[in-house]
Formats: sequence, C-alpha cells, structure tokens
Amino acid sequence: MNDNSRPMQRAIELARRGEGLVEPNPMVGCVLVRNGNVVGEGWHQRFGGAHAEIEALATAGAAAHGATAFVTLEPCAHQGQTPPCTEALIAAHVARVVVGCRDPNPVVDGRGIGALRAAGIAVELFESDGEAAALIAPFTKLMNRGRPWVIAKWAMTLDGKLAAASGDSRWISGEESRAVVHRLRGRMDAIVVGRGTAEHDDPLLTARPVGARTPTRIVLDSQAVLSLDSQLVRTASEAPVLLAAAANAPESRCHALREAGVEVWQAAPTALSASDRWLSLLDELGRRRMTNVLVEGGAKVLGALLDAHEIDEVHAFIAPRFVGGAGPSPLAGEGLPTMAQALSLVDRCVESLGEDLYVHGRLKSEKAR
Amino acid sequence: MNDNSRPMQRAIELARRGEGLVEPNPMVGCVLVRNGNVVGEGWHQRFGGAHAEIEALATAGAAAHGATAFVTLEPCAHQGQTPPCTEALIAAHVARVVVGCRDPNPVVDGRGIGALRAAGIAVELFESDGEAAALIAPFTKLMNRGRPWVIAKWAMTLDGKLAAASGDSRWISGEESRAVVHRLRGRMDAIVVGRGTAEHDDPLLTARPVGARTPTRIVLDSQAVLSLDSQLVRTASEAPVLLAAAANAPESRCHALREAGVEVWQAAPTALSASDRWLSLLDELGRRRMTNVLVEGGAKVLGALLDAHEIDEVHAFIAPRFVGGAGPSPLAGEGLPTMAQALSLVDRCVESLGEDLYVHGRLKSEKAR
Repeated sequence: MNDNSRPMQRAIELARRGEGLVEPNPMVGCVLVRNGNVVGEGWHQRFGGAHAEIEALATAGAAAHGATAFVTLEPCAHQGQTPPCTEALIAAHVARVVVGCRDPNPVVDGRGIGALRAAGIAVELFESDGEAAALIAPFTKLMNRGRPWVIAKWAMTLDGKLAAASGDSRWISGEESRAVVHRLRGRMDAIVVGRGTAEHDDPLLTARPVGARTPTRIVLDSQAVLSLDSQLVRTASEAPVLLAAAANAPESRCHALREAGVEVWQAAPTALSASDRWLSLLDELGRRRMTNVLVEGGAKVLGALLDAHEIDEVHAFIAPRFVGGAGPSPLAGEGLPTMAQALSLVDRCVESLGEDLYVHGRLKSEKAR
Repeated sequence: MNDNSRPMQRAIELARRGEGLVEPNPMVGCVLVRNGNVVGEGWHQRFGGAHAEIEALATAGAAAHGATAFVTLEPCAHQGQTPPCTEALIAAHVARVVVGCRDPNPVVDGRGIGALRAAGIAVELFESDGEAAALIAPFTKLMNRGRPWVIAKWAMTLDGKLAAASGDSRWISGEESRAVVHRLRGRMDAIVVGRGTAEHDDPLLTARPVGARTPTRIVLDSQAVLSLDSQLVRTASEAPVLLAAAANAPESRCHALREAGVEVWQAAPTALSASDRWLSLLDELGRRRMTNVLVEGGAKVLGALLDAHEIDEVHAFIAPRFVGGAGPSPLAGEGLPTMAQALSLVDRCVESLGEDLYVHGRLKSEKAR
C-alpha cells in the first residue's frame, strides 16, 4: 500500500454512494489532499448532476490550491451535460492528479489526462488491483459493447433445486435473502424473467421498498402468450412492462398486450435460438442505455444467457435444505461440455443471511470484455 | 454457563479424540475435578480398550478421592469387555458424578446412575444444548434402530450440478475439499456409491492417506453388472468390497463377482424399490454393527436414500463455478412435494476450503429417532 492507496480507497467509497442514481453515467469519487490533510471530498450524486471533481473542489474552496486530487476515473475534457472537469481542476490550481483508471468513453480517450498535463499538472495513473476499473465495469461494458451489465440471480436448495418436483418454489430462501433481492432490484434498469416463471409465480418484479430506480419489468415470451390477467400486465401502468417476443409472435397477441399497456418488442427475424434472442434484446437494452439488468430465471432463461456468454455477475442464495426429486437446477441450456470449462466467479464473496448462504461475484470471462 | 459447563466441555473434547477408533462403542470423555482443579482426564481411546472413567481415574490416582467426575455418558454398570465403571468410581471414593447424557443402551438404562446413587454418590444429569447426546448420535441410532448413521456427501457447482451434461465431473471441488472427503472416509465403516458412479468414475473409494478404519466399499448394483475390470473389483483383496444386489440378480454374475473376491449381498425379496433395498441394506449393516456410513452418490442413490428418510448428516461441497446444461443435481428420487416440506440442516456449519464452500450439518428429522 503506497501513499496513494488510502485516499483512492476513500474516493472509491464515495463513488459507490452514487450506485443506482448516476447510471448510465459511471460512479465517480474524488478526494483532495493537501499537506497530508483531506481538504475536499465529492462524488457524482445523480445523473445530470455535478461531477465528483466539481463537488470536491466546491467543498475545498481555496484549499484546493496546490492540492492533489485523487479521482477514481480520468476527468472529462469535453462539454457534456456539465462543463469539462479538467478546466475546473486547472482553474483551482490543483498541483497533481492521481487517476484511478482511464475513461473507456471514446470521447475522452486520454484527452482528460492530456489536458491536465498540458496545463502543467502532474498526472499519475494509480496502480492497484483494478478496483477503480471494477467500479465502473457496467459502464465500461455498455460503452465498449453496447450491452448492459447482466446479473444472474437464483435461489436454490442445498441439493441444487430451484423448485420441488411439483414446481413449488415458495419459499426457498428466507426473508433476509429476499430483502437483499429487493435492494438489488431497486438499482436496476430492468428485471428479466422467462414466460414460465411469469406464469407459474405470477410475480410483480418490483422493488419493495422502492429503490433509486424503477426497473422495467421484462418477460421473455417468444410467442407472446403472457396472460392479460397476470399481475405484471395488470400493473403495467404503474411500472413499465416490456414483453420480448420473437419476430414471428402472433400479431393478435402482441396487439392485445399493447392494448393492455405492455410494450411488445420483437427480436430480429434472424434471432432463431433463445440465445440469439437474448443477444438481440441486450443490444436493444444497450441502445436504451440501460446499464444494469437483473435476470431472475427460470433455468431455461438463465441457461440461454450462459450459452450466449452474457452473464457478468452472479448472486446465488443457497438455503440449507433439500427436497430431492426432479425439480430444475438453476442453469439449463446447452451448458459447457466439461467441468474444466466451467465458468468461475472472481471476487467470490460469501455472506450468511439468516439461515441462507449468499454467494456473489463477477464472472471470470473467457474473453476480454 | 454454570460451573459444570467448562469441565463437561473439556470431557466432550477429550471424547472426540476417539472418533473413528472406538466404534461401535460410543465416544466418551471424563474429567475429574477436586477443589476447582482438574486432577484427572481420560477418554475411551479404542474399541476394546479401557473406558474413559478408568483412564481418568488412573491419571488422578489418590486425588480422585472426594473429586467430581464429569463424564459425557452415563457410566456402565455391567460387565462388558471391561469391568463396570460404576464400581471403579465407587472404589475410588469419587464424591459426585455429573453425567452428560443417559446411555441409550438398554443394558444400561439408568442402572449406572442407580448404582452410583446406591453407593451414596451424588449424581447430576447435565443440562445443556444436548452436545453430549449429539456426540453419540450414531451410537444411539445403531442402538435404537439397528441401522448405521448415514452421511450423504456431494460436490456440486454453484448451479447445482454433479456433472456437466457430458457426464464429466472431474473435478468439481478443489484439492482442499477432496482432502476433507478422504479424512471423512478414514473414520467410516462403509462407503457407498451407486452402480452408475462406480462405472462412470471407476473410483477406488479408499481413504488416502489411510485413516483410523478401513471402510468396506459398497456398490448398490441391483443386477450385479459391475465390471470385473473395475478398480473396485481388482482391489477387492486389499480392502473389502460388498456388492448390494437385488434378490433377483443373475446368479452367474453374482458367482463371477464372488470368485473375484467381492462379497455379494442380496436384499430381501420383498425389497422391490430402491428405497426398500436401501432399508434392507442398512438393516444388514446394522447387524454387522457398522456405526458410520458415507454415501457418495450419485443422484439416484442419494435420492432413494432421501425417500427412505435415512439421511442423518450432509456434507456438501460447493464450487464457485457453473456449467449449465442437463447434468444431474445432487438428489433425485421422488423427493418432497413442496418446499415447505424440504428437510433442513441443524447445526449448519459453513467453511471455506480453498475456493470451495463446505456446508455440513445434521438433519432435522421429521420423526424422533
């Protein structure tokens, strides 16, 4: 740990306060240090609001003069919704800037660092375990690949079941686990389930209590058979519902659902498999600048997502109980042919939630993202 | 925690040192305390050896006079392989005996406590969370129900799979987890797998390194089709192999396996289902006074065991990886019809073993055992 670690860690902490509020912008935090003392702190608080550097400079006032700015992300050098942060840092006579990671936005592309250096400010790129880059991984994926960050969530028994053989699945996990799911939902742009789950569980898919965002509720339903009496359709005026159908879905069904307030979106005609339709949908959600999407099952939907190589993060809840029988396990689809090819979680984190185990982490991708 | 808790806890610790060495006897520990000082300690060290009380009295010598004996299990009052412990405690002029739990052995049935009281020794039954009773649960089951304690073990992915769709399962868990399984094997009387696992994995089912016991390797193989070329059959002279067949297994196959050194045991003709054959086998293993049996799968074998209501303890290893596809989840069989009926682990314990999670605990039985 060098002298830069502590203030950068603090800047990352500050940045996280914007989670769920700043998207599709990245979370950013900034700490100003002069003579070893913190003289200013700030973070990007909400989409459209001031950037972290501006917030930190405002709290520091004249004390910013000669200070070092620790900022989790390369400062912007372009006019966006707010003026360039580089100009503000230069005007405040900051002596040095330590940058957590480069901005993946091609509009920035090193220009922020360049502008600061041109003004005589020393700029260092912070060497760490990549935490500053991990902080904005969803933003980076959206920027580089045009698709949202996809979080797969499931609750299973200790014998790997999503449901008993009868289909009964209420409840596998305990109250504490379900509360965590609701908090997760509250910072998502969309929540996705398959038609089977929508029919069988008849869920609302809302965050309760309400979170920072109101996620669009998406049902993968290639033939648009979702019942007009479902809770999702009946609450379509309260929170958006998008039905993702295949190109060949019956027009009468699409029409009826649209009349009921559901947005019916149809995949490209070339998208014939479930995995292809997933990719078509993720491209569409990326065009809408959705940053985070939570996929809650069932097994076929999650399996097709795995087959499409689009799971970025996993949140698994494991109840210390077992049911036996022929109920589904969390991921179906084609799957990987051998154990050696199984996909691993990195940053595996394990917590106890009441009786349940909560395992979450990001995916070790088989390809660079 | 009262004054009895600390010495009783110590006695339980001592008792555990006999694990794997004393069966089919129960583990027992004993601590002698006089004027607040420990003056003697002992435990039942091996089957046929001295009982815990005798060991403790020997270390205390004359200091046992007037001491309190904390013993995890009611002292025996009958002549077994060794003389009655009650007589030894009386002869040593122990003043008081605190008993962890009553002996479930009908030959004892309170007679130990009675004999001590008749000799003027104060006897207290220790009130606790049942840890002393839990210590001898396998002994108690064998004594009361004539069947061994059955431990189900499996290793699965985070998406609840025992194998990839191809059947490949090597390896799901890491080296640390496999080392724990080998230690578990080394204190078992038997290790059981199904024919499918025996064929597919061609395992040795030995404890490596060797443990306190040499478990009998049992294959559930109703039609006795196990290959004579399997590792199990080829090593039958090195460690016992028992093939558990149905009553109607082809005589030619049974004969060939017997010639190869395998013991072929056949279930009762009335045992028509896999669950019934399990019960028939467990009765047989109980007659052989086997105390602990480890069942390593596959899914059908574990499911039939669940359906027979004979899983007493679970050791599940969960790797933070997933494969998707149509591979089996750990327990098949009929299963429980609803989640509300799922069987729960009590004393759930979670450990990290390298990358893996290790969840183990005993079953909350739906009926008193």
